[in-house]
Amino acid sequence: MAAIAAAGAPFVPPLVRPLAHRATPTPSAKPLGFAVVGLGSLATNQIAPALQTTKNCRLAAIVTGTPAKAVKWKAQYGIPDRSIYDYDTMDRLADNPDVDVVYVVTPNGLHARDTIKAARAGKHVLCEKPMEVSSERCQAMVDAVKAAGRQLAIGYRCRFEPHHLEMLRVARDRELGEVRLIEAAFGFPIGDPTQWRLKRALAGGGPLMDVGIYAIQSAEMIVGSYPVAVTAVETTKTDPVKFADVEESLAFELKFANGVAASCMTSYKVGGMNRTTAFADRGTFGLTPAFNYDGIRGWRSDAKPLEAPEVDQFATEMDDFADCINANRPTSVSGEMGLRDVRTMMAIYEAARTGRTVQIA
Amino acid sequence: MAAIAAAGAPFVPPLVRPLAHRATPTPSAKPLGFAVVGLGSLATNQIAPALQTTKNCRLAAIVTGTPAKAVKWKAQYGIPDRSIYDYDTMDRLADNPDVDVVYVVTPNGLHARDTIKAARAGKHVLCEKPMEVSSERCQAMVDAVKAAGRQLAIGYRCRFEPHHLEMLRVARDRELGEVRLIEAAFGFPIGDPTQWRLKRALAGGGPLMDVGIYAIQSAEMIVGSYPVAVTAVETTKTDPVKFADVEESLAFELKFANGVAASCMTSYKVGGMNRTTAFADRGTFGLTPAFNYDGIRGWRSDAKPLEAPEVDQFATEMDDFADCINANRPTSVSGEMGLRDVRTMMAIYEAARTGRTVQIA
Repeated sequence: MAAIAAAGAPFVPPLVRPLAHRATPTPSAKPLGFAVVGLGSLATNQIAPALQTTKNCRLAAIVTGTPAKAVKWKAQYGIPDRSIYDYDTMDRLADNPDVDVVYVVTPNGLHARDTIKAARAGKHVLCEKPMEVSSERCQAMVDAVKAAGRQLAIGYRCRFEPHHLEMLRVARDRELGEVRLIEAAFGFPIGDPTQWRLKRALAGGGPLMDVGIYAIQSAEMIVGSYPVAVTAVETTKTDPVKFADVEESLAFELKFANGVAASCMTSYKVGGMNRTTAFADRGTFGLTPAFNYDGIRGWRSDAKPLEAPEVDQFATEMDDFADCINANRPTSVSGEMGLRDVRTMMAIYEAARTGRTVQIA
Repeated sequence: MAAIAAAGAPFVPPLVRPLAHRATPTPSAKPLGFAVVGLGSLATNQIAPALQTTKNCRLAAIVTGTPAKAVKWKAQYGIPDRSIYDYDTMDRLADNPDVDVVYVVTPNGLHARDTIKAARAGKHVLCEKPMEVSSERCQAMVDAVKAAGRQLAIGYRCRFEPHHLEMLRVARDRELGEVRLIEAAFGFPIGDPTQWRLKRALAGGGPLMDVGIYAIQSAEMIVGSYPVAVTAVETTKTDPVKFADVEESLAFELKFANGVAASCMTSYKVGGMNRTTAFADRGTFGLTPAFNYDGIRGWRSDAKPLEAPEVDQFATEMDDFADCINANRPTSVSGEMGLRDVRTMMAIYEAARTGRTVQIA
């Protein structure tokens, strides 16, 4: 990452420079072309199908290190050979006018590598959460995309999910009074012990990085800001082999500048942990389950409905980014947000390790 | 309290000395007589009515500083004049063979005073939670009751509540696997700003001492031990006048020696916070609401019922103590348990104040 910083690319605030030189046509002309990088389970089962239902996006290219996957995707989605890349050839995306946006879906610890390559190829980048495994790498990603005059968005699908937006509305409109406390938790019992999610170098951590981030994001959405201090308690590992590299479960607390506290949990050991609750002056409201791809259910203590339409969360997220690019308007799920959340998670790990409240400047 | 220690009463382990010298008759002869000390809302609305439904207890005497209350209780419950005391005359309980147990229901910061008086009068003591406002006072209470060769129980009603016991059974029998994480919270918006619960000298703290203790107790019941470390985050006070003396809301975490973590909240600001959830290897179970006097509802993620009969929790608690006394068997809700919980709560306050994990030896 040092090389990136040393390259001396000028710091360009996002969207100050008009994106007039981008290769894509005008908004209404045709959908933005997406290159999907990393054809794992999420790309295969969620993102590619979602791209078939988006309004302003289309699957234009793939980047994969596995030739068999390339064959399968080519057949299934009719991707031309010229738009099929591996990690050595993806630099050539620069020459592909069909691709406007690169969607980085590789393991967490490869996000900087792939985002920076995409930015250097002149593409906008949508990068899955968590943004990367260190704040330094996140900063390098922000810098690279800025230097390219493109936009960087993080795959925070819940920021566009209608139940979460309705919860946010109830909070912002103070329908049940001011929110004072939040409880949010997301965990699941992880399977295959050999997967990259259990390797620190690729994952950056355990359930916190993978799903605990949803609890953090939910609290941030409701409060409307980032936490400024954190505490954390790690459970003792019950499977020190499987969880040799990362935490098994964590309880953590967030404190916000407006005084609100959030009590959170995350786990790769136990399931049934999938909810967010806001405690406000005149009542309580929340989502249970909160973080699934579908089937989210809202509730309010005043028995009024907390309902919203079900959408394809990935399609909605991609369409929003396409809209932002087309309208030359900054995405709400910026690289800065992704960087801040990585800093928060690193602070949570530090708090668990040191037993101290860690302030986040 | 120094006077107590200086009195040099020998340390007598509970129940080592047979209770043959107590004034009460044999177990089956007649119900144990209870003196209720402190005729506030809890005594009036819960404890006195409960005493009408107990199997082994009866309301035998009252101690009150308010003559009008004495008149009312005398009329309502037919209490003889010789069994009506104030705080100056309650020493004379020693001469009243109708009284076996003194139930201390005064404000938290008067529990030691009243418990020690009752012990010196040779009575068993049931003391409301929290036990006192400092661990030193709790220790003095334990010592005084031991010195008198009597039993001391703390009013942890949920320890006898059938839904809580069923939750405990599901945990102990590992019906959904081993419990790994717990979430528990209890809070309510407090009314009258002049009440003793908002004065540190009498309450010892805010919602943590009053209702957060139920979250701690629930986690302790499920885990079967006491927490060994705590962290805490206090919300910023939104009403610094009302909450000048005590915390308004707290998020806190407990770590147990077996590795389990519990994520807890308590509040005098917001309601709707009344639940306990256990996250186990094969499922989740809990109570919502969990801590009310009635209407507790259990649930399990496997859709099996978590049901139990509804009981008068105060009657059950008093009958259990009477049974313990009659059978010369130690109460499960001992003064040592009450003392330990006060130490835990003081550690939580220290953690909130210092931003450090506080170990509890």
